Amino acid sequence: MSSVNKTAHPFDKARLEALLNRRFFYAKAFEIYGGISGLYDYGPPGSSLQANIIAEWRKHFIVEEGMLELDTTILTPAPVFETSGHVARFADWMVKDTVTGDVLRADHLVGGVLEARLAGHKEAKGLAANPPAQDDKDKKKRKKQAKAAPVLLSDEIVAEYESTLAQLDNYSGPELGELCRKYDIRNPDTSNVVSEPVQFNLMFASSIGPTGQHPGYLRPETAQGHFLNFARLLDFNNGRVPFASAQVGRSFRNEISPRAGLLRVREFTMAEIEHFVDPEDKSHVRFGEIKDVKLRLLDRHVQVSGRTDLTEISAGEAVARGIVANETLAYFLVRIYTFLLKIGIDPARLRFRQHMANEMAHYAADCWDAEIQGSNGWTECVGCADRAAYDLTVHSEKTGTPLVVRTALKDPIVTEKETAEFDKKSLGKTFGKDTALVQEIVNALDEAGLLKLKGELAQGSATVERDGKSFTLTPALLTIERKTFKQSIREFTPNVIEPSFGLGRILYLLLEHTFWSREQDVERGVLSLPPLVAPTKVLIVPLSAREEFDPLVLEVSAKLRKAGVFSRVDDSNTSIGKRYARNDELGTPFGITLDFASVQNRTMTLRERDTTDQLIGPIDEVIATVTELVQGSIDWPEAARRLPRYDGVQAVAE
Amino acid sequence: MSSVNKTAHPFDKARLEALLNRRFFYAKAFEIYGGISGLYDYGPPGSSLQANIIAEWRKHFIVEEGMLELDTTILTPAPVFETSGHVARFADWMVKDTVTGDVLRADHLVGGVLEARLAGHKEAKGLAANPPAQDDKDKKKRKKQAKAAPVLLSDEIVAEYESTLAQLDNYSGPELGELCRKYDIRNPDTSNVVSEPVQFNLMFASSIGPTGQHPGYLRPETAQGHFLNFARLLDFNNGRVPFASAQVGRSFRNEISPRAGLLRVREFTMAEIEHFVDPEDKSHVRFGEIKDVKLRLLDRHVQVSGRTDLTEISAGEAVARGIVANETLAYFLVRIYTFLLKIGIDPARLRFRQHMANEMAHYAADCWDAEIQGSNGWTECVGCADRAAYDLTVHSEKTGTPLVVRTALKDPIVTEKETAEFDKKSLGKTFGKDTALVQEIVNALDEAGLLKLKGELAQGSATVERDGKSFTLTPALLTIERKTFKQSIREFTPNVIEPSFGLGRILYLLLEHTFWSREQDVERGVLSLPPLVAPTKVLIVPLSAREEFDPLVLEVSAKLRKAGVFSRVDDSNTSIGKRYARNDELGTPFGITLDFASVQNRTMTLRERDTTDQLIGPIDEVIATVTELVQGSIDWPEAARRLPRYDGVQAVAE
Repeated sequence: MSSVNKTAHPFDKARLEALLNRRFFYAKAFEIYGGISGLYDYGPPGSSLQANIIAEWRKHFIVEEGMLELDTTILTPAPVFETSGHVARFADWMVKDTVTGDVLRADHLVGGVLEARLAGHKEAKGLAANPPAQDDKDKKKRKKQAKAAPVLLSDEIVAEYESTLAQLDNYSGPELGELCRKYDIRNPDTSNVVSEPVQFNLMFASSIGPTGQHPGYLRPETAQGHFLNFARLLDFNNGRVPFASAQVGRSFRNEISPRAGLLRVREFTMAEIEHFVDPEDKSHVRFGEIKDVKLRLLDRHVQVSGRTDLTEISAGEAVARGIVANETLAYFLVRIYTFLLKIGIDPARLRFRQHMANEMAHYAADCWDAEIQGSNGWTECVGCADRAAYDLTVHSEKTGTPLVVRTALKDPIVTEKETAEFDKKSLGKTFGKDTALVQEIVNALDEAGLLKLKGELAQGSATVERDGKSFTLTPALLTIERKTFKQSIREFTPNVIEPSFGLGRILYLLLEHTFWSREQDVERGVLSLPPLVAPTKVLIVPLSAREEFDPLVLEVSAKLRKAGVFSRVDDSNTSIGKRYARNDELGTPFGITLDFASVQNRTMTLRERDTTDQLIGPIDEVIATVTELVQGSIDWPEAARRLPRYDGVQAVAE
Repeated sequence: MSSVNKTAHPFDKARLEALLNRRFFYAKAFEIYGGISGLYDYGPPGSSLQANIIAEWRKHFIVEEGMLELDTTILTPAPVFETSGHVARFADWMVKDTVTGDVLRADHLVGGVLEARLAGHKEAKGLAANPPAQDDKDKKKRKKQAKAAPVLLSDEIVAEYESTLAQLDNYSGPELGELCRKYDIRNPDTSNVVSEPVQFNLMFASSIGPTGQHPGYLRPETAQGHFLNFARLLDFNNGRVPFASAQVGRSFRNEISPRAGLLRVREFTMAEIEHFVDPEDKSHVRFGEIKDVKLRLLDRHVQVSGRTDLTEISAGEAVARGIVANETLAYFLVRIYTFLLKIGIDPARLRFRQHMANEMAHYAADCWDAEIQGSNGWTECVGCADRAAYDLTVHSEKTGTPLVVRTALKDPIVTEKETAEFDKKSLGKTFGKDTALVQEIVNALDEAGLLKLKGELAQGSATVERDGKSFTLTPALLTIERKTFKQSIREFTPNVIEPSFGLGRILYLLLEHTFWSREQDVERGVLSLPPLVAPTKVLIVPLSAREEFDPLVLEVSAKLRKAGVFSRVDDSNTSIGKRYARNDELGTPFGITLDFASVQNRTMTLRERDTTDQLIGPIDEVIATVTELVQGSIDWPEAARRLPRYDGVQAVAE
């Protein structure tokens, strides 16, 4: 897709959004009821685009990696999220405007107001405010919220503000409240004082069953469904790790104030993989296949030093140099990278950023985000976290269910220790109902205790006591010997590497990356979606809706369907040029025109969306060519070598 | 799949359920937390089976019928369901055990207890209780709940009970409460008195946004998302009907006491189509293609007469005879039928039953259910309802948004009527600020009033009055003439035909229809899933996990993947026979064995699941054959003509 964004016109977000709305890629849900922030419906092209992305995701990950697919419930009883930590920690602090009742996220409010004041100070000093750092999403958000008058601040206050901003992610709710009072931070929209911050859990609550006996939540991620089924998955995989489970499904987060279209929504489709791996061996069997693929990384150390420059480095070298912790993590970064490129993301606007220690989710040991650059800056689209053994451990402890792998040790571990063996018959005769107690006393002894007892027995007898009772032991009742033990089974809780895809974000940024306008006419938007994910692959355009074209339209549709190529017919009562323009906006890569020549000579023309070049040929040859184009086995220049160029009589005027 | 259920063993539900649990087709969700009734997780084979059914559904309906796909939100603000009627009417009546607090559905309780008493009466009279009618699901449910002692009843009471049971669906909550008191109906599990019935809405409630400002529900069907987007969909379809939207997604119903495994659950995946059609023309353009397909129908009239015998009749005749109301409804019944057969449902256990007037949903004008017979009797799996204009009308009225189609009339409707035309200048001069009032008075006149005024004006002048004011009109101020009006646009609210698929029910009954056991060994379960939907198409079985087989395993896997055939390798440390048996339980239709002969001669064997017959051939020939088998372009007998039978040295002992 070399032509993508090769437009002379600068990217215009308003134009793209108008196109997406006009062509019903997506729209605010419940629009005729006034809409609800953060809820969007996908229309026909958006749904098909999403379905095609998911189909490719399934192929790229589930099929090619032999993953185990899951489909678990959205409704989740509260105890699961109490154990996972989400009830306590999956929350943001919010404040209310004390007059209007408007709700604001406390950290965004403090950050936004302080940044605005610093900007005002710089303006007052006659300095242009620095443009916001490209990589700091939170700063961008805050910037939108507040704008302060140009007022000079003391050096001391500037230093305080800057230090506060640098630590913003670390403040507790009460501390954020304290900052609001100390710096008189108010709702910038109304200048009203705000309330004390209260914690707001981002999970939607509901109640399962008719009597409210099961409080529950809508899941904020699909991951817990994988962990709870771990024992079954392991069994399905014949007891062996590594293996991965995968799931595509809806999740829900009750965002305090969702903005930014599809980038921050309350209901979204995720695709999540949980790769279970031996914590002592995070190598990957297919690492060799991908080790030379280069990635653009922004690691933690570079960020700590305040820089955002990327390191372009092969996966193999990144692991060798310790930038990426292990092969499995690096393997998934590459697989994520190749997936995103396949569906049409611009590699120049894709990077992998390592989380800073203070921004990781409570369960994560390490995390790299695939970030895609769009008009809103860099957005996290795929998280690739090492959740270590956190989840399996907490669920296992809570429920008493072992969530472990047992493997045969190649080299059994041999240990020696003193061991008591009882002559049970004599023991029973001697101690009667106290027999079990005596055994218990002896078995409770540690190595030193057993050695002491062994020495005493060697002298003839020994006495043990408990609860005021004392028992005399002799070598006839028990012997203590040094024995060799061989441990041939190793039991461990696997670690989890979790690539987690936000499909709505990827879909929206793909639309940004593929949108451009014809050089001669800025109004004529084009979405250069790759055929792999384009909602419709081929548009069939009869010259008019007249009946004489019907048999050909049916024939071509049927033949394309048989070839597995999804086509649509546009026989609406408008010019061929307008129909093509509409389908350029829908991202349809190829067009077929049926005109009087088709009826007479059984030829038809084939148009390519990005170049608008046309070829001509016999119906069956054109179908064979476009099928290969859609499958990706040939490109347009190759098609142009097979079929003659069409620039004769302009039956197709544009 | 002629071999399906050709087993000598009777169907054994317990064995099937054990298999489904063992192989993790599905399991109770949150099992390690004790589980929650009505919530299930699908494991790898269940998820793949479901994904394959959905993929075929998309192809069969969305692609082949050119439907418009949608993906709308699950979270829905309350006003939508207030308008649709779900808040008021999507509810069941429940009672509580006054001692234990156990909750029961009131109609199930009353029905169950009265039926049990009638059964007890018959038993006491020495008659065997009639076996429950095969087609009455509710009776089955009730039967499970209650069992009464054999007690004789008076003839009068028997008649009362029978009459009550016949009307059970018509009672209100208070009437059900009255019945409990009158007949002393108690919780059969505890013999405790039950509370007055209270209405329990089956929608899960939640709250959207941080301040609870938007009460909402989880949708109980995906349909409302289609209706709310109607205007956008119509625009997308160039303003024309008929067209259909389609959506696959989760819905939720907070069942009072879910039982029966996947057949009655609280969270489920639906596939819904809303076909928007001109109420005056419900013909279907492709009806001719399917009119000769025969369906097995159980219509309303047959049911009213207490019978359950099926009418086997072609779609064309069913419409001609008025059994099915129109072509579009009949077209969808046939398309539903062919879809269900394609995925493997037994046609002998499939029927279409028309809803009785008293069982239809509040929005339905007519409804036919595709019912599938299983061990629980007949279960509704696809509803095909004519929702008429109900939904679009109520949403349009509530929101003031026109949800209508405007079409050009071929023959404009011409009407004539008397029409007043004012000389606005003179009128203004004469009446000043009363001008508008005078015009309003005249315009409010009906045809007769205008004719009277016209006559008076012909006489020279006329007087009109309002609010004590009177105005004298003359021909200089207005003229009244008979004019011709041509209406060339027709505006109407389309009707909706809604095929709605419960995918979990279909999936479960498909498993029942394809499950059987090997004649020689009842323990060896087989799922004869068609290749189209089978979770894995081909199992690759190397003789052992020894390294010498690795290159061949990789080669065969890669070649199958390239051919689009989903395979899995089973190199676990167990006999080939055991590995095949495990995959018979997973419904894997074909198996490939790689042994020493494969390494030496590059041949491999191909095994068919249902017959266990094996063929042998060169690697590439076997791959080509199995690819065609999976695609359905050849069958096993044809494969056996291409490749020699393998029954030589039994490297593959079973």
